[in-house]
Amino acid sequence: MDDYQKLLGIGRECRHLSAISMLLEWDQETYMPKEGINPRSEQIELIEGLHHKTKTGSRFESALAKLIAIDTGEIVGKDLTGEQIAALRVWRLEYLDDLKLPNAFVKESAKTVSKAKNAWIEAKQKNNYATFAPHLKKVVEQARKKADYLGYKEHPYDALLGIHEPGMTARRLRELFAELKPFLTQMTSRLSNRKVDTSCLRGPYPLEKQEKFCHFILKTIGVDPDSTRLDMSEHPFCIGLHPHDVRITMHASTTNLFMAPSAVLHEGGHALYDLGLPAEHFGSPLAECSSIGIHESQSRFFETYIGQGLPFWKHAYPELQKTFPSQLGNTPLDTFYEAINDVRPSLIRVFSDEVSYILHVILRFEIELGFLEGSIDVDDLPRIWNEKMEESLGITPPTDAEGCLQDVHWSCGYFGYFPTYALGNIYAGQIFVALKKALPDWAEHVAQGNLAPIVTYLRENIHKHGHRYSALELIERLSGDTLTSKPYMDYLTEKYR
Amino acid sequence: MDDYQKLLGIGRECRHLSAISMLLEWDQETYMPKEGINPRSEQIELIEGLHHKTKTGSRFESALAKLIAIDTGEIVGKDLTGEQIAALRVWRLEYLDDLKLPNAFVKESAKTVSKAKNAWIEAKQKNNYATFAPHLKKVVEQARKKADYLGYKEHPYDALLGIHEPGMTARRLRELFAELKPFLTQMTSRLSNRKVDTSCLRGPYPLEKQEKFCHFILKTIGVDPDSTRLDMSEHPFCIGLHPHDVRITMHASTTNLFMAPSAVLHEGGHALYDLGLPAEHFGSPLAECSSIGIHESQSRFFETYIGQGLPFWKHAYPELQKTFPSQLGNTPLDTFYEAINDVRPSLIRVFSDEVSYILHVILRFEIELGFLEGSIDVDDLPRIWNEKMEESLGITPPTDAEGCLQDVHWSCGYFGYFPTYALGNIYAGQIFVALKKALPDWAEHVAQGNLAPIVTYLRENIHKHGHRYSALELIERLSGDTLTSKPYMDYLTEKYR
Repeated sequence: MDDYQKLLGIGRECRHLSAISMLLEWDQETYMPKEGINPRSEQIELIEGLHHKTKTGSRFESALAKLIAIDTGEIVGKDLTGEQIAALRVWRLEYLDDLKLPNAFVKESAKTVSKAKNAWIEAKQKNNYATFAPHLKKVVEQARKKADYLGYKEHPYDALLGIHEPGMTARRLRELFAELKPFLTQMTSRLSNRKVDTSCLRGPYPLEKQEKFCHFILKTIGVDPDSTRLDMSEHPFCIGLHPHDVRITMHASTTNLFMAPSAVLHEGGHALYDLGLPAEHFGSPLAECSSIGIHESQSRFFETYIGQGLPFWKHAYPELQKTFPSQLGNTPLDTFYEAINDVRPSLIRVFSDEVSYILHVILRFEIELGFLEGSIDVDDLPRIWNEKMEESLGITPPTDAEGCLQDVHWSCGYFGYFPTYALGNIYAGQIFVALKKALPDWAEHVAQGNLAPIVTYLRENIHKHGHRYSALELIERLSGDTLTSKPYMDYLTEKYR
Repeated sequence: MDDYQKLLGIGRECRHLSAISMLLEWDQETYMPKEGINPRSEQIELIEGLHHKTKTGSRFESALAKLIAIDTGEIVGKDLTGEQIAALRVWRLEYLDDLKLPNAFVKESAKTVSKAKNAWIEAKQKNNYATFAPHLKKVVEQARKKADYLGYKEHPYDALLGIHEPGMTARRLRELFAELKPFLTQMTSRLSNRKVDTSCLRGPYPLEKQEKFCHFILKTIGVDPDSTRLDMSEHPFCIGLHPHDVRITMHASTTNLFMAPSAVLHEGGHALYDLGLPAEHFGSPLAECSSIGIHESQSRFFETYIGQGLPFWKHAYPELQKTFPSQLGNTPLDTFYEAINDVRPSLIRVFSDEVSYILHVILRFEIELGFLEGSIDVDDLPRIWNEKMEESLGITPPTDAEGCLQDVHWSCGYFGYFPTYALGNIYAGQIFVALKKALPDWAEHVAQGNLAPIVTYLRENIHKHGHRYSALELIERLSGDTLTSKPYMDYLTEKYR
């Protein structure tokens, strides 16, 4: 076996361990008996420990060092393909990053976060921010420390951002958001003056039939049922155990017809990416996503650009009417289309429309920067959150539970993560423009339920490359342009003219 | 942390790894997408490798050696409880056994078995024993080698038996079976002359309602729904990930009403054992079963002694009639009871009645002995199988698929395993006698759907001890008697008088 194959073997072990950890979480969210939670936490901790040990261990290091010099990054292996060289460069950087965090710090953080998450659940339930604040303070402190361990050139935020979106910076985000914030605020405000009849979404719609329709959606967008599952969970998610085993979950409401389809379109987009990663490279960066933002671009692409578009519903709406003849038989497509595209400031990010969505992200980005820079005190969060909500969305949460306590992310120590949700939309805008150029008749295909050309385009231009290219490289290769939010803004402008 | 706690910590890691491996198999049998099979095999192999490495590694050895001398078994730890001392003794023996098999042999066996299993599936499908024979030869060779590695005093079979049923010997089984075989053969032959109307079981019975009724059964026998799941799979099984997370699966047939309840009673019995193991000792032998035979005694106890008994159906049959009013509304309990207790020689062990069941096991025991002793040639298996079926059950399988190819066990290298199925029934007979002495009014309780006193008895006398006592010690403590099949035979004699 040659040196690259040996390294790939250890990479596969690492990737399987992370897949097993994901499966343990999937099981926890779908089928695990209630009392299984304590042993489950221990199991996940054990597997993650083994994963960390394997990917930072001497066996991995010496296998890597035979092919690429770990200190300089010089390629020292022989007869390597271009792909393999790209993989080695990513592997090396990830390995160096993995070494930066001392074991004691990782363990300490895990404990803090575990307590913070429990405190957050209780604080949210009881609408009592004060009990969460001391935990959040510790999490913020650890985020600052983490940034120092990881290192950065300009801003500690860059270090945290880089975990999820390698190469992205706070500076670049500030520029993007400076342009987007006034644009989206004004657009949301203008559109929310429209009167839109959304009563057709309120049903009630029995859950079983919704689930059946969601399978129809997955089939339509080309998610392979032999390599995928769809289950119910409290919050929808998608995990890729392997390009041949991807799990999607959904959550449905009897009184909000669009909740489930929109979740399934979103997670289905993630699934198509995971399914499109090249299985032959499983275990190497060539079979990993390029970045979380690119992953999110695939989910938002199917959720909004496709899934809130008229062509898609020309095909899917008759099926939806067939599924719910008594509720929708007399509702024309236009009414349904208007209802699912109602733009209206809302308190909760995850259910917000595609215009105001990024405003929620910007708010969190500003607060995270303030936390890291020390200009925002954790104790002041409720006030600042509410002020910022009023400023950008024109509404004030009636409770902290619906305000600064709504997201789980901070209790998990996920600082620098939220911007990937915004980047997903922005990347998707650039991808959509490139795709329309390559497939001028995309809309006719979609209206006939034929999404294969679109999936093929995404597979060829994004999925199959894995992490061979960075997010920005992928976008440039595909669009010929650098990162820009113009296509995203143009798309919204045209759609909501 | 004291030395015992340190050892227990490593024990917990080992136990969690085996639980994770079980969960991977559970997922494979229940929900995994079809294409997930290849990565799944690699995941299981990886986890089992880590499990083996942990339980035979130097970290475990030195933790163990601080408490018990590994060469002599002398207790060297201080301030240990009686339970802890018992645990250490089992731990040491298991550790020594784990060391006996060379790594290269274990890997080689795994490969042979993997190929043999695939060959078996195909051979069974095509009813072509010849294609399986060369694989079985290798498996048999490896079983002989394994026995040599493990060591034995009298017969190589004892070494293989000891993996599942520590302390049991081929000599003791021969004695038990010599008594049982003529008894059961005559009884089966006599009872199969009865004409029994089993038409009430043939339905058709819709699967969903059967599943609902199976949940009623689990509730009745006291399986805690907060710590258990019931799912569908091709073959029913029960796995205990932890005393708070136990998974049962069932298989149902629309035209055989008793298939699902009987599987659920069986797996439910296993589940009660797993749920009754003391969680505070999880990771040590004190939270493991005493032996596979004892585990099987719990499943067979609920499947046959309780679940094919009149008291249980006095309580459960009205519910079954309510579930299927059009099919069973006019069928009296007696007719149903006769139908589920029809005794008739059958080709397939897993669906055989409680009288002829052990005859299937004895047949396999005799063949396994012949394989190991070299008195039976693998190539002659079909002929010998059919002769033995004729001799003990009076029937000849029309095909090898229904004959010598029916069980998966040999392709998996499970030699010395079948006898635990027989021992389960025999142990259960002794347990039943002891239980009736302790709870003279057991039948009235059961007829009222109150199984709690029985479960409490089993928990106190069996479950809570884990592997503190060997199977034979448990049986002696509980019955005051050594191992004997008399109670089992008495039970059958009285029931089928």
